Amino acid sequence: MSSPVSRSSSEGNVTRLRTGADLNLPQRFAHRAEMMKASEIRSLFAVASRPEIVSLAGGMPNLSALPMDMMAGVVEKLIASNGAEALQYGSGQGHPKLREQICEMMALEGIKAHPDDVVVTTGSQQALDLISRIFIDPGDVVLVEAPSYVGALGTFKQYEASVVHVAMDEDGLIPEALRNAIAEVQARGQKIKFLYLIPNYQNPAGVLLPAERRTEILEICQKEKIFVVEDNPYGLLGFDKPSPNAMRASDSENVIYLGSFSKTIAPGFRVGWALVPPSLKEKLVIASESSILCPSNFTQLAISGYLADQPWRDQIASFCKLYKVRRDAMLESLDAHFPKSATWTKPGGGFYVWVTLPPEIDTTALMPKAIVAKVAFVPGTAFYADGFGSWSMRLSYCHPTPERIREGVKALGGVIKTEMEIREIQ
Amino acid sequence: MSSPVSRSSSEGNVTRLRTGADLNLPQRFAHRAEMMKASEIRSLFAVASRPEIVSLAGGMPNLSALPMDMMAGVVEKLIASNGAEALQYGSGQGHPKLREQICEMMALEGIKAHPDDVVVTTGSQQALDLISRIFIDPGDVVLVEAPSYVGALGTFKQYEASVVHVAMDEDGLIPEALRNAIAEVQARGQKIKFLYLIPNYQNPAGVLLPAERRTEILEICQKEKIFVVEDNPYGLLGFDKPSPNAMRASDSENVIYLGSFSKTIAPGFRVGWALVPPSLKEKLVIASESSILCPSNFTQLAISGYLADQPWRDQIASFCKLYKVRRDAMLESLDAHFPKSATWTKPGGGFYVWVTLPPEIDTTALMPKAIVAKVAFVPGTAFYADGFGSWSMRLSYCHPTPERIREGVKALGGVIKTEMEIREIQ
Repeated sequence: MSSPVSRSSSEGNVTRLRTGADLNLPQRFAHRAEMMKASEIRSLFAVASRPEIVSLAGGMPNLSALPMDMMAGVVEKLIASNGAEALQYGSGQGHPKLREQICEMMALEGIKAHPDDVVVTTGSQQALDLISRIFIDPGDVVLVEAPSYVGALGTFKQYEASVVHVAMDEDGLIPEALRNAIAEVQARGQKIKFLYLIPNYQNPAGVLLPAERRTEILEICQKEKIFVVEDNPYGLLGFDKPSPNAMRASDSENVIYLGSFSKTIAPGFRVGWALVPPSLKEKLVIASESSILCPSNFTQLAISGYLADQPWRDQIASFCKLYKVRRDAMLESLDAHFPKSATWTKPGGGFYVWVTLPPEIDTTALMPKAIVAKVAFVPGTAFYADGFGSWSMRLSYCHPTPERIREGVKALGGVIKTEMEIREIQ
Repeated sequence: MSSPVSRSSSEGNVTRLRTGADLNLPQRFAHRAEMMKASEIRSLFAVASRPEIVSLAGGMPNLSALPMDMMAGVVEKLIASNGAEALQYGSGQGHPKLREQICEMMALEGIKAHPDDVVVTTGSQQALDLISRIFIDPGDVVLVEAPSYVGALGTFKQYEASVVHVAMDEDGLIPEALRNAIAEVQARGQKIKFLYLIPNYQNPAGVLLPAERRTEILEICQKEKIFVVEDNPYGLLGFDKPSPNAMRASDSENVIYLGSFSKTIAPGFRVGWALVPPSLKEKLVIASESSILCPSNFTQLAISGYLADQPWRDQIASFCKLYKVRRDAMLESLDAHFPKSATWTKPGGGFYVWVTLPPEIDTTALMPKAIVAKVAFVPGTAFYADGFGSWSMRLSYCHPTPERIREGVKALGGVIKTEMEIREIQ
């Protein structure tokens, strides 16, 4: 497309027809804007959301067990009785009442915290953004699990971090691999700013970090003066037994803990939080005010009212039940329909199963074929900053019905088997 | 404060007693974190919020004319009838229905826009943050009015911009001063990324940019390839006559328009937006997803439902009436109680009056005396990036009752007159 620069100065009007090319846009952007490019996961979601496709791609929680009538009552009462506060600007740090309730909730995972050290954010994604803002200069190293949450990788990239992946196994991050990664980065003379990890029912791998490894990793990071960013959206969504204590429970000075109501209650409120060492609190609040002024009083007080008046523990228990049935459906169908040479994780909670195929299979190239077979997933490379993961995929069981999950896994197993036959893989 | 590094490794526990100093925190932060320091305005707000103080400091809208019962009904109905959507993750760009309604609202100021070019943000502060993220490399110049919005200055600072103020008079930004500022910056070899301005009832100056200046400024910026960031929270809050067409109405390629429901409806929803040239849309959405994943479906749909079902034009008209009475109370009391050597702007809308005192008066030093006299304001230096403004102050009339405004202005006039007597200023 091209269009002339036209200026009808006689009318006092101004140009309307210029294009991005005319404007020399790339030279006008900040350097970091080069990182702001549509990812493969983006175009995928557009297709995967069509109703005829079984989406094993998204991480949308299943809200069918949320008591909508109760919630409607909570928000109606909130505005009618306290609208002047709920609809006004609030504290940049977050509402004091909700920060207290957040501390009560974190106590379920062994955390002793003071509401003063909690900063409420617009989903925990904003906390990730703010932490990155405070710590990352271009070229600084962030250590992450291999694979790791796609949204965190995107944020680290925008802050021009150098992301270094650390190997995992079925018990999560491997401490020895962490030691080696630190030594290698230090040998290159790079600064490590923090280790980002999801200890419970990791996204995308679905694995759980056992208590002993938590202690060992904390000790390594303390010794090396590397902050630990513990992202814990799924900790209360264990199906079989409670998850171990949060890492923050045994280290209040070196752990930055991120929590969220998106998976335990609902994501539409966009309420998450960071629990930070006191030494970081002021900077985090100032960074957040610069970013959004303050989180929504309305959504904070809606959650606060819900936590105060409704049986939220029972509701989370009913979420666990709902997800467990779906997890079981997925694992059974994987056993039934996936080739013998594929392996996958067996999550004890959360939303995700991580599947590893024979290395000859490129899961990104497989996607169009899967879509034709009416099933969608996320290709493994989305969860790596370095192009790795091409023969793996993330399957999520959180949203579809168990029947649809079975249908989708069966269809996907067929697509994979056909691909293996074509490529003569055993 | 100091405390020993203690480690009880025999229990497998980890250190709890280290301090920020032990951690060498300054070396661990990003360079931009140096800018994240508490401002004078921050400690001020803590004091100004005490009930015995007449606060002419804050910019909190007055929600007494908002129909809370109607709003309570809107949110109750929203969750009861559409909770599964309202409480779920939504589009990173914002809800399509609300983006349509935003376009209808902007049409009131002469803007023809397509919903595809609207990006919904967590208040327009987030839009400011994202625009900064896309454009500002450290050292890049941002041109702003003198004085300008404190929240914008804070954001530009965090992105390590070099902020250059451009002179205003009672008709807002002076085009000739803009030409000179551009020439000076270019002579220094610095890159100008955008001009940020608030054409309607400017914060903090309260002035309005006339139509002819809008055209002239747009032409200057087009010629120099400098984007115009038009921040317009107060455009619909004109008391005496409608404000001129938005700058965006006559330039869809070079103007980034920021809008907000915070002043026209309520800030507690945290819903604002950016209307951007198509060439910027994708980067803005990706930057926003990295920052917050998506804006709250719940608050977006609450506003959408309110706009669809309730007489919001009448409500905005009742806001204008309410603020006009307060503006009149403030201007009358300024006439009655401020010294003859003080001057101030006469806003035709919005929230703020900008007062200029004799240059010997330091308004920051005046604050403790004003607090003793039970009145608060914002010292002028808060609105400059360069320490200027020490003999000016922002007074806001939006929130207190007219009686309290009169009381506060009278008390403040007394404090200023006493100060002038002490300093023997005529």
